[in-house]
Amino acid sequence: MDEFIPFNVFAEFGTRPGVGYHAHHEYWFALLELPKDVATLKFALAQIDPTVGDIDGNTKLILSAFEEACEAGADVVIFPELCVFGYPPKDAVYRTDLVKRNVEAVERIARACAGKTVIVGYVQPDASGEGRGVFNAAAVCRDGAVQASYAKTLLPTYDVFDEARYFNPGTSPLTVEVKHGAESIRVGVTICEDLWNDAQFEGRRVYGQDPVRHSIDAGAELIVNISASPFRAGMWQGREQLFSSQMKVHQTPLFYVNQFGGNDDVLFDGASLAMDARGAVIARAKAFEKDLLLVDWPVQAGGRVEAYPEDIASIRAALVMGIRDYAGKCGFHSALVGVSGGVDSAVTAALAVEALGKVNVHAVAMPSRYSSDHSLEDAEALARLLDIRYTVISIEQPHRAMEAAIAGLFAEAPANASTVAEENIQARIRGSLLMSVSNKFNSLLLTTGNKSEWAVGYCTLYGDMCGGLAVLNDVPKTSVFALARHINEDAGRVLIPERTITKPPSAELRANQYDQDTLPPYDVLDALLEHYVTQGVSAADIVKKGFDRQLVDRVVGMVDRSEYKRKQSPVGLKVTSRAFGSGWRMPIAAKLR
Amino acid sequence: MDEFIPFNVFAEFGTRPGVGYHAHHEYWFALLELPKDVATLKFALAQIDPTVGDIDGNTKLILSAFEEACEAGADVVIFPELCVFGYPPKDAVYRTDLVKRNVEAVERIARACAGKTVIVGYVQPDASGEGRGVFNAAAVCRDGAVQASYAKTLLPTYDVFDEARYFNPGTSPLTVEVKHGAESIRVGVTICEDLWNDAQFEGRRVYGQDPVRHSIDAGAELIVNISASPFRAGMWQGREQLFSSQMKVHQTPLFYVNQFGGNDDVLFDGASLAMDARGAVIARAKAFEKDLLLVDWPVQAGGRVEAYPEDIASIRAALVMGIRDYAGKCGFHSALVGVSGGVDSAVTAALAVEALGKVNVHAVAMPSRYSSDHSLEDAEALARLLDIRYTVISIEQPHRAMEAAIAGLFAEAPANASTVAEENIQARIRGSLLMSVSNKFNSLLLTTGNKSEWAVGYCTLYGDMCGGLAVLNDVPKTSVFALARHINEDAGRVLIPERTITKPPSAELRANQYDQDTLPPYDVLDALLEHYVTQGVSAADIVKKGFDRQLVDRVVGMVDRSEYKRKQSPVGLKVTSRAFGSGWRMPIAAKLR
Repeated sequence: MDEFIPFNVFAEFGTRPGVGYHAHHEYWFALLELPKDVATLKFALAQIDPTVGDIDGNTKLILSAFEEACEAGADVVIFPELCVFGYPPKDAVYRTDLVKRNVEAVERIARACAGKTVIVGYVQPDASGEGRGVFNAAAVCRDGAVQASYAKTLLPTYDVFDEARYFNPGTSPLTVEVKHGAESIRVGVTICEDLWNDAQFEGRRVYGQDPVRHSIDAGAELIVNISASPFRAGMWQGREQLFSSQMKVHQTPLFYVNQFGGNDDVLFDGASLAMDARGAVIARAKAFEKDLLLVDWPVQAGGRVEAYPEDIASIRAALVMGIRDYAGKCGFHSALVGVSGGVDSAVTAALAVEALGKVNVHAVAMPSRYSSDHSLEDAEALARLLDIRYTVISIEQPHRAMEAAIAGLFAEAPANASTVAEENIQARIRGSLLMSVSNKFNSLLLTTGNKSEWAVGYCTLYGDMCGGLAVLNDVPKTSVFALARHINEDAGRVLIPERTITKPPSAELRANQYDQDTLPPYDVLDALLEHYVTQGVSAADIVKKGFDRQLVDRVVGMVDRSEYKRKQSPVGLKVTSRAFGSGWRMPIAAKLR
Repeated sequence: MDEFIPFNVFAEFGTRPGVGYHAHHEYWFALLELPKDVATLKFALAQIDPTVGDIDGNTKLILSAFEEACEAGADVVIFPELCVFGYPPKDAVYRTDLVKRNVEAVERIARACAGKTVIVGYVQPDASGEGRGVFNAAAVCRDGAVQASYAKTLLPTYDVFDEARYFNPGTSPLTVEVKHGAESIRVGVTICEDLWNDAQFEGRRVYGQDPVRHSIDAGAELIVNISASPFRAGMWQGREQLFSSQMKVHQTPLFYVNQFGGNDDVLFDGASLAMDARGAVIARAKAFEKDLLLVDWPVQAGGRVEAYPEDIASIRAALVMGIRDYAGKCGFHSALVGVSGGVDSAVTAALAVEALGKVNVHAVAMPSRYSSDHSLEDAEALARLLDIRYTVISIEQPHRAMEAAIAGLFAEAPANASTVAEENIQARIRGSLLMSVSNKFNSLLLTTGNKSEWAVGYCTLYGDMCGGLAVLNDVPKTSVFALARHINEDAGRVLIPERTITKPPSAELRANQYDQDTLPPYDVLDALLEHYVTQGVSAADIVKKGFDRQLVDRVVGMVDRSEYKRKQSPVGLKVTSRAFGSGWRMPIAAKLR
C-alpha cells in the first residue's frame, strides 16, 4: 500500500485542517483517486545512547546521527529527551557549567542543521524568574538557529523520576510549521510524560492537564514525543497500548523517539515508533540498540517494523546492554565475576561475556572448606564453556587467619549466639579478594546477587554484595533460572552447566547448608515478593490472596529488616516496575511492622 | 511585662479584627490601661521525636505529651508535622496499612482530647480523586473527633525533600476558631514549607502561592506552623530571621512547632518557638531534646526562651542525638568503633560515649605492620580517657594470608601498577573484623570517615567505609579537629589525647604515608570542598575565587570519580546544607568534566 492522501485534500471536505490522513481513512480512502507523486516529508527518528553530563560526546552522537539521516534523505531529524545533557541528569543538572555547555551545544547543533529541521532534547535555563531553575526542553532548530523551544509540561515524580526536583513545568504547547514543497504541516512537540496522561494506566497520578490535547488545539497535525522511557519487562506493550488509545482519541499520528542504553540503574529500550491516527504502529525501531527510523509524512503503513523481543529475551538484552553501558560509561574494558558454581554467578558471567566479549571477562572461584566438589567443577565447567579466563584462589588460609584473629573476642559471646558472623567472614574474604583484583587490574567487579536474596537480606554486606554493578538485583531467583535456560537454548548449546541449573541452591557458608533451610521455596518466595516488593501489596492483603500468614509475616519482616544492606548496595539494573534502586526509598531507622 | 491587650479591644479602634495585639503594639501600648484579669488561652507546643512508621509508638508519645500539657493547664496542644507517621516518611507512605493505622491513631488521639484542642500532623488519604494519593496534613481534634484537616500547600522537592513524590498539594487555607471564655480566636493552620515562601532565602524556588497570606485573609489572627525542619549548623538563625521577616509583613503572631531527633540522615533540632506580630521571639523551646513549650494567647513577652547552642556545640549536640536515635530506632544498645589513634575515630568514640553511655561503647584497635607506635598508644589512651572497653586485634596474620592468596594473580600485574590494591587489603580486613564483632554481639558499627575524605574518595570501600552509621560524613576534617578541641574544652579535661589532635593525619596503609602526600592541606581542601560540594560552585568559578586551577581540577576530578564509593556508603548524619545523603543524587556512569 503505497498510496497516500496529502492532508490538504481533506480541507475541501471540511474536516479540521491538519488532522491528516489516517484519522478519516476509513471514510475517505475508497472515495479518492490519489496522485502517486505528491511530495512527501521524510522524518528520521534518531535513537541514540547519551551519557549524563558528557555534552561533547552526546553532541558528537547527535551530529553523527544527523549526518546519517541527511544521507538517507531526511528533512526532519528528531532526537530523544534531554539527549544533549543525558537522562536522568540527577543532581548534575545543578552544575551550571554543564547547563551552559549544553546550551552552547544546542546552538552548535542548530548551526550544523541548516536547511533541515532538528528537534532535540536539552536543559533549557529559565530566562524569566531571575534565572532560577531550568526546563526539560525540546529545541526546534532550523536555518542555523534555535527557532523555538518547548518545555515539558508534565513532570513525573514517581519511581525513579525526580523531575519536580529539577525542572520548572512548561505551561504552553508548541507547534512548529514544517514546509515540504508548496505544502506545510504543523508539528506539535511534546516530551515523554506529556503523553502518559491516562488515568487508566497503572494508577499513575491523574494530571490536570493534557499537553497533547493543547498541542492539537493549537493546530498540531502530528504529535512528536521525545522520550527517555525506561525499560521493564513487558512494558513496551503497555506503552504502545497507551499511545494507541491516546492517538485514537486525538485522531492524530504520533512519532515517538526513545533513547536506548543504560544510565546507572535505569535502562532504556529504544523501540521508537510511528503510529498512525488510528493508533496503529506503522514503524518501529530496534529495541536495545542504535537505530535510525525513517518515516514519511503523510504517514502510511508499510514502514520498517522491528519485532520487540519476548519477555525473557528482552530482560537478557536489557541486562547485556546495561552491563556494556555501565562499564563503558565508567571507563572499564573488562569485568570480573566471582563464580561459585551456582546459577547467579553463571548467568552473570554469561551476560558479561555477551556484553564485553569473552576475552574481557575473568572468572574467579574462591572455594572454602565448605565448598562442595561439584561447586568447583561447575565453576570450572562454566569458564570452559564460556571460554573465559578462570582463576582459583583458595580462601582457607585467610579464613583461618581471620578466625584466629577474632577467636579471643568470639569466645566471649554467648554459647547460643548465631553463627552468621562466622559465615559472613568467608563471604567478606571473597569480596575483599575480588576487590583486590578489581583494584589491581582496573576490572569492573560484577555483583551476582539476585532480587529474591536482596529482598530478604540473604546476602552478606561487604561480602557477596561487593561490586560496581549488581547485574541481577532486579531479577528474582526463579527468573534467574529462566534466564539460564534461555541462554542455553538461544545459544543452541550448553553455556551454563546443566547441574548449575538443576542442583539445589546453597550459599555453602557452613556444612550442608541450603537456601531452603532458611527461605521458603523460591517459587513461593518470589510470588510473595512480587506482591510485597514489586506491587506494594500490604502483608494483610497478601494473606488474603492465600499465602500463609506466618510465612508472610516472616518474609515481610526479613524484607523490612534488611533495608540497611540494600542502602549500601551497588547500582543494579532495573527490569521490573519496582527495583531496589533509585526508585526505592525506604527508611532504615523505622518500625514498619 | 505581664500586661496584655485582648484582641477585641482593638475592634473599637477599627483595626482589622483578629490582627491581635502586637501588630499594633508600638502605637497602642501606651494609650491603654489594661485589665490584668482577662482570661488567657494556653497553648502547648509539644516537641517530640517520632519514628517513621511506628504509629503505635508515636501515638504513645503524643498522648503522653498531651497529658503533660493538660497537667500544665494547656487549652490547645500542638504537635509537629507528620508526627503520627514519622518524617520523612519516604516510600513507607506507600504502605496503605500504615496509612490506615495512622488515620485510626488520629481518631484515637481525637477521642482522648475531649475538651481540649489538639493539632497534629498525619498522612491524610485523599478522599476525592478515586482514592489516589495522600496529603501531608494537620488534623484539628476537639470534642472527641477530627473537626477539620488542613493539607500542606507548598511541597518542598529539593535537597532531602521529596514531597511532590508522595503528596498531593492542598489548595485551601484552614482557620479554626478556638474559644476561651466568652472570647474566641481564629487560628490559621500551616505546615512547614508553607511558611518558607521567601524569594530572598537561599535562592529556593519562588512559590506562586502564599498559604500564610491566604490563612490571614481567611481570618487567622494567629499562625500555627507544624514542622519537621532539619538541622544544619547556623540554620536556626536564618530560620528565625525568615519567620521574623514573614510575620512582620503579616503583622500576625506565629507558633512554630518543630520535632527533634534523627530519622536516618536527617536531624531535627526542635527549638520550637512563639513569635509576636512584630517578629520577635517571645518563647523558644530547647534544641535537640524533648520539650513542652507553654505560651499564652494573647501573646506577650516574658516566656521561656532557651538559648540555642553555638555552632560547634550545636553540631556536637546534633551528632550525639543522631547516634542515639539511629541506634535506638534500629534496636541497638551498643556501638563499636575501630580506633586508629587518629582524630576521626577519637571524635566518633567520644560522641558515641555521650550518646550511648561509656559502658555501651567498645573500641577496637587493629594495628598492622605499618601502624606507628604512637597510633596504638593514642588509641589506648583514648579508650582509657573515655573509660570504654578496648580490644586490640593485630591484623598481621590475616594480612599475610590475604597477600599470599592474591600473590599469584598480582604477580601478573604491570610492575608500575598502583599499590592501592595492596593498601586496601588492610582496610578491608579491618572492616571485616569489625563487622564480625558487630554481627556477633549485635553492636552498631560506627563509621569514622569525615566529609573531606569521602568527598575526594580518600577512603576504602568495604574497608573504613564499613558500618551502619557514618557519624562524621558531613563534617569536614577541619571541623573534626574543632570538634575534638571543643569536646576537651567542654569536658574541662582531656578526653581526646592531645597528640591525636596535633599529629599529622595518616592512613598508615604503607610506610611513612601521610594524608598530605596525596591531598592538599586540609584547610585548603575544605575551603575548596565547601565551594564545590556544599555550595555547588562550578570549578571555573572556584578558580575565579583565587584557587589554583590545577588544584581545583585535581580535587574536582577526585570528587566526581569517587561517586561510586559514596553510592555504597552507610547513612550519615547531615549537619550542612548539602550532605552526601538522601539530598545528594549524583549519577555515577557519567562524564561531568
